[in-house]
Amino acid sequence: MSQSSLFERHKDTLERAITASRTREYWTAYPEIASPKIYGENASADGEAAFKSYLNKDFTIDQPAVTGTVGSERSPYGFDLGINYPKVDAAALISEVEAIRQDWAKASIEARTGICLEILNRINKRSFEMAFAVMHTTGQAFMMAFQAGGPHAQDRGLEAVVYAYEDMTRTPAVARWEKPQGKRDPLVMEKHFTVIPRGIGLVIGCSTFPTWNSYPGLFASLVTGNAVIVKPHPGGILPLAITVEICRDVLSEEGFNPNIVTLAADSAEAPLAKELALAPEVKLIDFTGSTTFGNWLEDNARQALVYTEKAGVNCVIIDSTDNFRGMIGNLAFTLSLYSGQMCTTPQNIFIPEGGIETEDGHKSFDEVAAALATGVEKLNGDDARASAILGAIQSKATLERIGEYGKGDNVILPSRSVPMDGFDGATIQTPLILKATDESSYTAELFGPISFVVPSKDTADSLKIVENSVKNHGAISFGIYSASDEVLDAAEDMACRVGVAISFNLTGGVYVNQTAAFSDFHATGCNPAANAALSDTAYVSNRYRVVQSRKHI
Amino acid sequence: MSQSSLFERHKDTLERAITASRTREYWTAYPEIASPKIYGENASADGEAAFKSYLNKDFTIDQPAVTGTVGSERSPYGFDLGINYPKVDAAALISEVEAIRQDWAKASIEARTGICLEILNRINKRSFEMAFAVMHTTGQAFMMAFQAGGPHAQDRGLEAVVYAYEDMTRTPAVARWEKPQGKRDPLVMEKHFTVIPRGIGLVIGCSTFPTWNSYPGLFASLVTGNAVIVKPHPGGILPLAITVEICRDVLSEEGFNPNIVTLAADSAEAPLAKELALAPEVKLIDFTGSTTFGNWLEDNARQALVYTEKAGVNCVIIDSTDNFRGMIGNLAFTLSLYSGQMCTTPQNIFIPEGGIETEDGHKSFDEVAAALATGVEKLNGDDARASAILGAIQSKATLERIGEYGKGDNVILPSRSVPMDGFDGATIQTPLILKATDESSYTAELFGPISFVVPSKDTADSLKIVENSVKNHGAISFGIYSASDEVLDAAEDMACRVGVAISFNLTGGVYVNQTAAFSDFHATGCNPAANAALSDTAYVSNRYRVVQSRKHI
Repeated sequence: MSQSSLFERHKDTLERAITASRTREYWTAYPEIASPKIYGENASADGEAAFKSYLNKDFTIDQPAVTGTVGSERSPYGFDLGINYPKVDAAALISEVEAIRQDWAKASIEARTGICLEILNRINKRSFEMAFAVMHTTGQAFMMAFQAGGPHAQDRGLEAVVYAYEDMTRTPAVARWEKPQGKRDPLVMEKHFTVIPRGIGLVIGCSTFPTWNSYPGLFASLVTGNAVIVKPHPGGILPLAITVEICRDVLSEEGFNPNIVTLAADSAEAPLAKELALAPEVKLIDFTGSTTFGNWLEDNARQALVYTEKAGVNCVIIDSTDNFRGMIGNLAFTLSLYSGQMCTTPQNIFIPEGGIETEDGHKSFDEVAAALATGVEKLNGDDARASAILGAIQSKATLERIGEYGKGDNVILPSRSVPMDGFDGATIQTPLILKATDESSYTAELFGPISFVVPSKDTADSLKIVENSVKNHGAISFGIYSASDEVLDAAEDMACRVGVAISFNLTGGVYVNQTAAFSDFHATGCNPAANAALSDTAYVSNRYRVVQSRKHI
Repeated sequence: MSQSSLFERHKDTLERAITASRTREYWTAYPEIASPKIYGENASADGEAAFKSYLNKDFTIDQPAVTGTVGSERSPYGFDLGINYPKVDAAALISEVEAIRQDWAKASIEARTGICLEILNRINKRSFEMAFAVMHTTGQAFMMAFQAGGPHAQDRGLEAVVYAYEDMTRTPAVARWEKPQGKRDPLVMEKHFTVIPRGIGLVIGCSTFPTWNSYPGLFASLVTGNAVIVKPHPGGILPLAITVEICRDVLSEEGFNPNIVTLAADSAEAPLAKELALAPEVKLIDFTGSTTFGNWLEDNARQALVYTEKAGVNCVIIDSTDNFRGMIGNLAFTLSLYSGQMCTTPQNIFIPEGGIETEDGHKSFDEVAAALATGVEKLNGDDARASAILGAIQSKATLERIGEYGKGDNVILPSRSVPMDGFDGATIQTPLILKATDESSYTAELFGPISFVVPSKDTADSLKIVENSVKNHGAISFGIYSASDEVLDAAEDMACRVGVAISFNLTGGVYVNQTAAFSDFHATGCNPAANAALSDTAYVSNRYRVVQSRKHI
């Protein structure tokens, strides 16, 4: 299929996505419902079979600089994946990619956009396979792995394509410039404007959202003409290996060298990220992970533009509510979903020490804290339902942290292990809720299902603490419950000063830790949790430059 | 006047500028012709009188943190300006600005845009006054000082406003988000999106183009809600002091604290740039000047986004021509204009050692070099005309460099001093042309009217040398003369690989060192000469972020 016909084939999707990103109304390109009517009668069974076909085998990719194999992924549901990926020599890989990347750099904007949209479309068709791959690397429950690892991640990839396409095409390819010269003939020039990429983009994945957090950077760099090297977290390679394979398939079919997109799988023992990140040819880096490594990249990979999402400490303030039951229900689900292993899960919940007003009258601090504990406990009371919400704990470090913090005398709700049928070794834990003792106990990020209820003097005090917390420790989400418009206005003012998204009075089916592509921005890019937002113009517009030529005609 | 009516008043200019920046066709908001019909019968006399009224006096600005006065500008036309500007305590100034900047941050996009357009409009009305101020700080000849320091600079400021306005308004202020829930009621939310600035923007001016190189950063930061501190070069304060005064007037009239824009004049003996640049509140820095200080800013002001235009070595390749006379005439003017004190003036002119083909047959290397020398000599043969083209040499360092390099045995055209009626002390010099001896002689930037003719093996060799030169030493402009489409295509390919704008066969009234706002990008942002282009989306879109709120309705 010719490159321009791929563009034509997906043009409607592109245009609808542009409109959605400009209106911020509800829209999605890739259905989040894991339904056979949408994805095909056998999609689920086929997806599971495809996933199983990878286990205990080599995942072969015909790419350069391969020196052996690497891989030691273990499903948080209790088994080793046993998949061996190509192990690469980083310097050799970069040099090979640098040598072949010009054809892609020179492809038209429409050709590159069409190919990226085709890749996303094919990834979408394999959403069930991806769901199993995401589930058994991240520990996400199946339904979440399907949605967040599949359609929602695909939507976030499409968003990056949309922003880049719009900004690249803002400048015309050719212009006629005619400057009047009074009575003399005008000066007339023909000008050509060529979008040129930066070079090689490096995408460094994380273990909890390997696709969702990688697709924006992958597609933003790719559609703007850069070659992309994908370096997955050693614990979450498979979803990105499948992604890379699909990218390479489409590139090859369209006549490009597939090495425009390559995989650089590594292990915790022999990590590749630093060597890749410091290569002079790497001009763009997208990273999701720890603050330590994110800061290291920003400080050391100075030859590259570095886009980071790092740790943060998300907060909720409870001031008052006219829907106490709805609030508790909403927060209980928020804290439980994927066992708090989301960069948007709240950690600290501030409640005035004197209690709050509700539609049922006054409730003391202890009553609010107890209601929250009971809410979380009841939500996860049934093991089958609990495991479908909680998923499994991805890392040993998180498991150990739950154990350690559960030993204190400030436990309001202990964490319990949840058994799961068919998965004996699954590491499933309910949320641990603690009462904060002093500020030092809750200001660092405790990744996973650990949260604090924090007594404040009053809501003004809560707002002040949260403002400092966002400024110093970063945050991606922030929720507030109040029946007072004045309090909500003050909170929004604070959120704007300090740069964090704010959700008011969530008591229904929208949760503070969830964002919707095309409507909600993920992170703001101006507090320590992230230096960029997913996605906006700033995220894409510096990944390419424009070179112009001019001549008289 | 209400803020929204300023927006309405200038809306047509805004819309026409948006269209121009998208079509890249010829358009200008501010007429470059210094005509009484456009600027008023007495504009020239009034402008000169206004300029003279500043001399040997205090230039008072009622801004905070003033500790005394500073100022030692000297006109390159031979007299001291004798103007004393407020001297500020950098830390105190920053703390005062930080304390008052929120009202501007919270103003609507329309209010800020209207005010920026009004400021530009008022600056435009004072173009004659500005021309004298620019002439007697930079040494530009009057007509160039009028055009480049006035309307062209204003156009570049407007360009930044346009890009920022378009990108800020890409996201709506309010959106209704309605997600279907099958048979249940849809989830419905109201979302607010607020543009928030980064903080304080610092604009560090240069001595040769104090307005042209500062307006893009000044207006890009200002329109996106940041407060701006303007730190002029000690040799070029007046044009920016006038600019700051106009900004403050309009801000005050519109009910804002004028300290949103302040001046931080300093001296070579007690420079303020480093202290200002390292302040945590300074989140944006725009700099034009030396590579050394630009690199220092990039390496040290890590709390800020740093936009730099540094030194470069611009090149011209002569391969062949069918208009030898036009080529020589064009290059002679290019080398002479403002005595090569433009960041876009070519320094190295590559000619095959075996000579070139022309419409008059073959010409040897020496013949081409001699024709160029003769062309420059003749153009500047008449003293009055010469001074109107050359202007005066801005800095002692440039004068000394001309002297030093003029002593070698590789001089093809010596530089001569040009007397100017009425300005006895004017430092006017014609261009010095040298023959390159080895690569080390011409690869560093020799700012000012010094250029090399460089013998290459052939045009392929020229292209190779230029490619490496741009990669290693940076360049803002690149010109090539060739009658062969194949050569031009190869040159454009090279320019795209290495990221430099290219001009083909300029033989008429367009010069490689000139760019037209709304049509030509100034610099590409991807070679060592500059990390940003004036202006594109990347230049503005990270100066603000978006904070969103959402609630159920």
